[in-house]
Amino acid sequence: MTENKLAEALAHVLARVRASRPLIHHLTNWVVMNDTANATLAMGALPVMAQAPEEVVEITAGAQALLVNLGTLTTERIEAIFLAGRAANARMIPVILDPVGAGAARWRTENARRMLAELKVGIVRCNGAEAAALLEESAALRGVEDVGETDTQQRVGLAQRLARHYHVVAAVTGARDIISDGTLTLAVDNGHPLLKTITGSGCMATTLVACCAAVERDRMLAAATGLAVMGLAGERAAHTAHGPGSFRVALLDHIYCLTPEDLRRGAKVWTMESGSADEQTISPP
Amino acid sequence: MTENKLAEALAHVLARVRASRPLIHHLTNWVVMNDTANATLAMGALPVMAQAPEEVVEITAGAQALLVNLGTLTTERIEAIFLAGRAANARMIPVILDPVGAGAARWRTENARRMLAELKVGIVRCNGAEAAALLEESAALRGVEDVGETDTQQRVGLAQRLARHYHVVAAVTGARDIISDGTLTLAVDNGHPLLKTITGSGCMATTLVACCAAVERDRMLAAATGLAVMGLAGERAAHTAHGPGSFRVALLDHIYCLTPEDLRRGAKVWTMESGSADEQTISPP
Amino acid sequence: MTENKLAEALAHVLARVRASRPLIHHLTNWVVMNDTANATLAMGALPVMAQAPEEVVEITAGAQALLVNLGTLTTERIEAIFLAGRAANARMIPVILDPVGAGAARWRTENARRMLAELKVGIVRCNGAEAAALLEESAALRGVEDVGETDTQQRVGLAQRLARHYHVVAAVTGARDIISDGTLTLAVDNGHPLLKTITGSGCMATTLVACCAAVERDRMLAAATGLAVMGLAGERAAHTAHGPGSFRVALLDHIYCLTPEDLRRGAKVWTMESGSADEQTISPP
Repeated sequence: MTENKLAEALAHVLARVRASRPLIHHLTNWVVMNDTANATLAMGALPVMAQAPEEVVEITAGAQALLVNLGTLTTERIEAIFLAGRAANARMIPVILDPVGAGAARWRTENARRMLAELKVGIVRCNGAEAAALLEESAALRGVEDVGETDTQQRVGLAQRLARHYHVVAAVTGARDIISDGTLTLAVDNGHPLLKTITGSGCMATTLVACCAAVERDRMLAAATGLAVMGLAGERAAHTAHGPGSFRVALLDHIYCLTPEDLRRGAKVWTMESGSADEQTISPP
Repeated sequence: MTENKLAEALAHVLARVRASRPLIHHLTNWVVMNDTANATLAMGALPVMAQAPEEVVEITAGAQALLVNLGTLTTERIEAIFLAGRAANARMIPVILDPVGAGAARWRTENARRMLAELKVGIVRCNGAEAAALLEESAALRGVEDVGETDTQQRVGLAQRLARHYHVVAAVTGARDIISDGTLTLAVDNGHPLLKTITGSGCMATTLVACCAAVERDRMLAAATGLAVMGLAGERAAHTAHGPGSFRVALLDHIYCLTPEDLRRGAKVWTMESGSADEQTISPP
Repeated sequence: MTENKLAEALAHVLARVRASRPLIHHLTNWVVMNDTANATLAMGALPVMAQAPEEVVEITAGAQALLVNLGTLTTERIEAIFLAGRAANARMIPVILDPVGAGAARWRTENARRMLAELKVGIVRCNGAEAAALLEESAALRGVEDVGETDTQQRVGLAQRLARHYHVVAAVTGARDIISDGTLTLAVDNGHPLLKTITGSGCMATTLVACCAAVERDRMLAAATGLAVMGLAGERAAHTAHGPGSFRVALLDHIYCLTPEDLRRGAKVWTMESGSADEQTISPP
């Protein structure tokens, strides 16, 4: 697809989220639960955050996407994730994984890998350091932040290897977001540095991706739409923000106000030249 | 009471919350915990959110109201709810129930019904779909949202049946909020569509009701005051909001700034004509 | 140190937080988790909120400070606190304790005392009522709020006795914040009454103290820096706030925007005359 056609396809995905109001079941961390519920509503979808093993199968069965986020992971949430994940897989409901903090502690990394091995995950959204941890490669992670700030070239390789290794669409975000299914690779250039100053901006990006995956079977397109909306809303929020507090408020406003037409005109998404993961040459947009 | 007398009574309840700063014990969900603690403070009361079975009895014993909210329910919270609920009942501390997501999963619905059967609940605040689930009637619930948007006529019937069935004051909220004790029925017409764009607006409404129930033994009046404050603050917040992010910020500002005099002048509360639940005819205000 | 020298030392601590971006491990309560993660980022540090006993030792080992907060305490968090606390002690990583709600329930008070007895805690940040509870003195606590509003004279005595009894630096906050190691006593006069209208302002103050303790071994100086930043940001946020909602947003903006030079000029910190805890005479600044 040309760049123009891509942006048009993204706009169409957003329009469908707004029209069909999909229900997104979140099994997510306590830090961002409120932010991601609000991001889901701002996107035009509906959140449900039930976590008890006693009810997650029934809740997932009524949802259009299952979002799994590993921040503040607990053994009870792991149990809920496998129960809900299997229910989603059985009903062909897309599963979107945000492996928050993979690499920060062995227990969390191993559980993230086990989920990728035992569940059919559609899309993984993570930063470069988390991608490296899932691939047993080394990276500079501090807590849950990718402080080494992998460069674009590294993220392209990580996204492609992650996609091939786990048979997922991998969305590895950073200054330039990279999305790959192992063959085709997309880049999204929307975004703003203030997104790094608030907690949960990665988790919110994953949320928007899940909203799109609930209505769009092409996972590359779903991931690109979610990340472009997040990035574009971030750019607009930065115009009026005085710091991270007002930025976060404006971010929700702009996710809510962003129209499909805004996205068609503002999305900076393009297809990268194909090639092997490690010899990838990037064509500028 | 005439409409004017009612608004004056509401203003008086708000003034007493501000004067006595009641302590509200919340056994509530993780998504809205921060929002409802802030709503409690904005209303002029004090929140305490202790959840451990080891301490909830002692915490409830020192509080003026117990708020029970079933969002993100867990088995441990159910245990805490019964412990705290029995302590509240023994000391005549009012119990306010928000059966979030009743109807979304059998386990949650059954636990909500069991609480209503085994505890003495003073006020239930819910949406139409949740009310229907508690009454074993069918309704269009998706996740925790009442997407069928029950109409006023339906909510009147649901509130009256809920009140009679469980011997509670039922506050069933929607475009027009309905409050009933099974005999007398009130309507509150304050509110704004933006309240549906943020997570936890229902939970915050329940919080304001609990703050009022802590100081006002007439549960109809307490419920009407909480809902009128929420609706009126929502109307005012909408004037300056650019979307759900700035709306939520302004909502807390306006709950805090709303004076009893503002409420006396702005509350749109009126008594509905009595009649049987199903033959109810509504007299416009 | 003279007042000027003190303010300069505080500015230097803030500059070092910004330069070295320490990782702060929070074992904290659900109500404020999002606020304190955002406060950590706004201060220039990085938060990690992992809570599972399975991983807290490894997470703490990679952090520069461990913050322990007892709000919404659970038995599982107590287990995690002792595991992480011992790991921090073994590696000389500073432990900062916020005994939220000590005195509100016996179980919580006893656990707070046990932590102070069995772990090496560097700094305790609390209000006057919590300090009194830790010392088995009586005080007016309602829920987690210090409603008696201990006066400065009382807080000086409480901070000094707390410091001596538990061999900690005690930071007892109120209209005038008091910091003591049992011998030297500092006062911080920055702050604004709106800080009492939002939930978690005490927890956020503790967070900023932890960020400073991660880079500054002088615990008195670390505590004073964190409290002065919080107070000064609060003063500035109050200028544009319309209520607690907009105040909280502006607070994060101002923590983020505050420069070391702003702190050098705006910090109202001074050394109190020494004397016995109970005969303390306060010299005005």
